[in-house]
Amino acid sequence: MKKVKLRVPATVANLVCGFDILGTAIHEPYDEMEVNILDNPEIIIKHTDNFGLPEEPSNNVAGVVLMKIQEHLNLKNGFEIIINKKIKPGSGLGSSAASAAGAAVGANVLLGNILTKEELVHFAMFGEELASGVRHADNVAPCIFGGITLVKSSNPVDIIPLNSPDLFVTAVHPQVEVKTSDARQILKKNILLKDAIQQWGNIAGLVAGIQKNDFGLIGRSLHDVIIEPVRSILIPKFDEIKQKSLEIGALGGGISGSGPSIFMLSEKEEISQKIAKMMKSVYDEIGIESFVYVSKINPYGIQIID
Amino acid sequence: MKKVKLRVPATVANLVCGFDILGTAIHEPYDEMEVNILDNPEIIIKHTDNFGLPEEPSNNVAGVVLMKIQEHLNLKNGFEIIINKKIKPGSGLGSSAASAAGAAVGANVLLGNILTKEELVHFAMFGEELASGVRHADNVAPCIFGGITLVKSSNPVDIIPLNSPDLFVTAVHPQVEVKTSDARQILKKNILLKDAIQQWGNIAGLVAGIQKNDFGLIGRSLHDVIIEPVRSILIPKFDEIKQKSLEIGALGGGISGSGPSIFMLSEKEEISQKIAKMMKSVYDEIGIESFVYVSKINPYGIQIID
Repeated sequence: MKKVKLRVPATVANLVCGFDILGTAIHEPYDEMEVNILDNPEIIIKHTDNFGLPEEPSNNVAGVVLMKIQEHLNLKNGFEIIINKKIKPGSGLGSSAASAAGAAVGANVLLGNILTKEELVHFAMFGEELASGVRHADNVAPCIFGGITLVKSSNPVDIIPLNSPDLFVTAVHPQVEVKTSDARQILKKNILLKDAIQQWGNIAGLVAGIQKNDFGLIGRSLHDVIIEPVRSILIPKFDEIKQKSLEIGALGGGISGSGPSIFMLSEKEEISQKIAKMMKSVYDEIGIESFVYVSKINPYGIQIID
Repeated sequence: MKKVKLRVPATVANLVCGFDILGTAIHEPYDEMEVNILDNPEIIIKHTDNFGLPEEPSNNVAGVVLMKIQEHLNLKNGFEIIINKKIKPGSGLGSSAASAAGAAVGANVLLGNILTKEELVHFAMFGEELASGVRHADNVAPCIFGGITLVKSSNPVDIIPLNSPDLFVTAVHPQVEVKTSDARQILKKNILLKDAIQQWGNIAGLVAGIQKNDFGLIGRSLHDVIIEPVRSILIPKFDEIKQKSLEIGALGGGISGSGPSIFMLSEKEEISQKIAKMMKSVYDEIGIESFVYVSKINPYGIQIID
């Protein structure tokens, strides 16, 4: 096999109360990536999209992942990657994770699947480090494993795949910039023990709900009393969108990653579509362009399409 | 039915990282309780043990629970309860919870099971309030539901029964006093966000491990970076016992409730028995009397024995 084409999905990290530990793959949006194995050790990055991302391998998220794999395996081969990115950079929907995870998975397929999923996460995290300065697995783990994943530890990599409940995900990406560094700095270093206890009760309920397929319990557990109250002020209309989503019938939701995208989980497609319309109109009203996506939790993660 | 005999088990609350939310019923030790329904509204408490607990109903843990149920249901009947307590008061093994939960369950059986388990927890919490000043469900919930329970909320009562993994529990009760009020006051009101994140990763892992029956994951998740480092200093030899238990092969463990009892979870009875011997000898060496119990996670909770 000389060539593989992949569909690499967007991911929602920081799943409400599961800040820094829970994320999920979704179906829409997704990147298309074609990976070719080369006889020489060169690494070539090409984009067919218009985001103007750097193509110099050492400065490209997919590139650094391939370089690390090449180095680790002492490869004489190189890779060419052609990326058609549809997950907008800076959306909070795991755009850099898709490039990083796609590169790792694509290379591994062409090398005969010699790396485990944990190793793929390990290498993909170097791409995240280039993108954000932090070697985190919040998005690359669900992108590679599919479904909802628990990042129990990123060093060493300890990823726990959870069930994939049959839920719809509405995501809206308003065209405002939230710098990851701002979203990080705004967090308080100290929190109240009583808030932490409430948060871990919700996390325990959310994980139990996911494993039991108990949508009511999932809904009762989708509360973040620590991160969301602080970070949501960076996202225009967050409170209004959340409130209206719950009124329409969402189980719950919150900030995707560190924003600015907002996501909501629903049991029915009809509700999910209604929420999408509402989100769009809320941003239209204040003149902020937005993109909305309705899809389901994606149990597969990255898929080979050719 | 005029009379019921119950076996009311000990419980381990604050299951390591699951402070304030996770607890489990165990088989040993247990109280025996006989509940009789009376034609007059009197409430009579008798103890056949030697703990010298108060028998005035309004000052007795079982008594206040029965009074609350009587009031709520506008009963013309009363109850007589005969308690043979074997779970030592002040052990941290849910002694007061056993009296409270046993009274609620016993009365309910005699009344034709008109109350739900959630309602039984609600009433049993009044007993806990008398015993400790706090109306908490940490012990009464697993006592009534059996197995491992998540107390998602105690007001309103929202209890999530989890799986009962096939694990052995070794518990040691050293004869030292840890006042619940001291154990509470010693806790810091503020904690580091990074510690909280580590804690909720472990809680998510523990709940996932319990639901997946993944003992390795349970073991990797049994870490408490917030409460145990502070509270364990109140329990002599805690660190040594924990360290030696892990060396013998325990999956993990920690403080039972607010102490002084320590518990350890193991996959095999042999390991559990070895840990029990070690625990006893550690306390023997320093001249502290101790009681050890080896049993399994108890999936039933309170059982009717006659």
